[in-house]
Amino acid sequence: MSQILAVGTMAFDEIITPFGQSGKTLGGSASYIALAAQKLFNDIGIVSVIGEDFPDAFLQKFIDRKIDISGVEKLKGEKTFYWKGKYHNDLNRRDTLITEINCLEHFKPIVPDAYKTADFLMLGNLHPAIQQLVIDQMTKRPKLIALDTMNFWMNTAWDDLMTLLKNIDILIVNDEEARQLSKEYSLVRAAKTIQAMGPKYLIIKKGEHGALLFHGKNIFFAPALPLEDVFDPTGAGDTFAGGFIGKLAQMEDIGFSAMKNAVICGANLASFTVEKFGAQRLESLTKLEIKDRLQDFINLTQFEIELV
Amino acid sequence: MSQILAVGTMAFDEIITPFGQSGKTLGGSASYIALAAQKLFNDIGIVSVIGEDFPDAFLQKFIDRKIDISGVEKLKGEKTFYWKGKYHNDLNRRDTLITEINCLEHFKPIVPDAYKTADFLMLGNLHPAIQQLVIDQMTKRPKLIALDTMNFWMNTAWDDLMTLLKNIDILIVNDEEARQLSKEYSLVRAAKTIQAMGPKYLIIKKGEHGALLFHGKNIFFAPALPLEDVFDPTGAGDTFAGGFIGKLAQMEDIGFSAMKNAVICGANLASFTVEKFGAQRLESLTKLEIKDRLQDFINLTQFEIELV
Repeated sequence: MSQILAVGTMAFDEIITPFGQSGKTLGGSASYIALAAQKLFNDIGIVSVIGEDFPDAFLQKFIDRKIDISGVEKLKGEKTFYWKGKYHNDLNRRDTLITEINCLEHFKPIVPDAYKTADFLMLGNLHPAIQQLVIDQMTKRPKLIALDTMNFWMNTAWDDLMTLLKNIDILIVNDEEARQLSKEYSLVRAAKTIQAMGPKYLIIKKGEHGALLFHGKNIFFAPALPLEDVFDPTGAGDTFAGGFIGKLAQMEDIGFSAMKNAVICGANLASFTVEKFGAQRLESLTKLEIKDRLQDFINLTQFEIELV
Repeated sequence: MSQILAVGTMAFDEIITPFGQSGKTLGGSASYIALAAQKLFNDIGIVSVIGEDFPDAFLQKFIDRKIDISGVEKLKGEKTFYWKGKYHNDLNRRDTLITEINCLEHFKPIVPDAYKTADFLMLGNLHPAIQQLVIDQMTKRPKLIALDTMNFWMNTAWDDLMTLLKNIDILIVNDEEARQLSKEYSLVRAAKTIQAMGPKYLIIKKGEHGALLFHGKNIFFAPALPLEDVFDPTGAGDTFAGGFIGKLAQMEDIGFSAMKNAVICGANLASFTVEKFGAQRLESLTKLEIKDRLQDFINLTQFEIELV
């Protein structure tokens, strides 16, 4: 049986949007990835780190969903990673008000034995050397290693990132990150350059403008669902990644056609996350709601045309 | 037999991009609409106005393609509408350097008798009162009246535009224009507001991010084809409109499914226009190239998924 290992942060997020304030809510890349993937797939383990202040009630959310948190280390005398940010009126831009790294500074990921042979490894955004430490602990090469990263590591840990890119299968970044990584403005050119750095597959997320999947000469596009209101975009990217890896694990298939479906499922789940603060909508989300919205995506994109 | 009547400008465009300068090249909304629609449909008439300086060689491009130019009026003692613009490095923004209205100031459209019963009327961007004058000359209500407009008329001719919107079927605008017209930021909300102003159908173009088609609760999305290089975006929007109306006329169908195909065909043709200066690529474009690229659009967007 396949397994997903999700690696990343578990955090307190405090989010201010034009619609209100979230207070300290559950955040972090590993949280979103696991909660999203769990909508589609059952055997998921998290590797992350938390402080002593991380509430049991937050951990219980994962336990209730049968997500394995034996790889979540609670560091004594440390506080949990904390981020506070404020979105502009159009919700496309945000300012970081506070970032407290806290326990994350001492994070040395330890993969539980039960997940050292996981077929699907999703590495959320962390220092590339930390991400590499996880790969090094796997006793069997996963079928698929997916990686998220960010501009900050391109500026501060370029060599580590370049080494890491040679060891993964699919990179998931946004358009700005793809441009910085490749030094190309055109996303098609950026995709070529990035694939030459190692990953055979690449997803470029464009926020409200959807996501592109690249593999050699193949390109697939998943739009974001047009919504009446976006309430809070926080976590949409990690939700996308979780939905993506969750669908691949569910299908036990990593071919390009399966990846198309996985990209659509990622976009589907992300369209829910933005409806409420943080992970709140993801927590309440049902399989029926996901299925209905998948039909919306089909209606939005599928057409029948004669090739004349 | 169906006919298309295309109304709009015929112009000299002078375009500067990071890749070079076009010199005085054929431009104008009616030019792009007709040249694009002609790739898909045969009986097209233009209503427009030119000055005495408009070269016969430019008119010959239309005659060669059996596009009826009997409604193109050459005004004595006048010069042709002229636009000069310079694109920024990312090609998403441009500055207008020169606009000479010239003959357009005296434009009183006269619809040739042969096109007064056309089924498909495409009104390119002009003063809304001028666009209304065309509708008034039709002796039979067209099956479909499509309209392009711009922010300038929202600022200077709001009442004329509101009257006109009640008389048309589909409005084709870009995202910025949709937001100004509706005073809504969310495009889904904007679409509702605009449909309540009159047009039952609405297309919102998002440039490199594709186009959305709205009709009641139905939404369809056509991406722009991801390209290695965009050479010159001038005319892409009018090409889209021409491909859209051309496909509908070809299918003789104005249902929502036909419109999906038409939006894809519009995006298809627009993806060619941006490859060269002005209308140059559109002029050389073959049916086989269009068919091949339609397959690219199918590969880009179509997927098969189980609804579970």
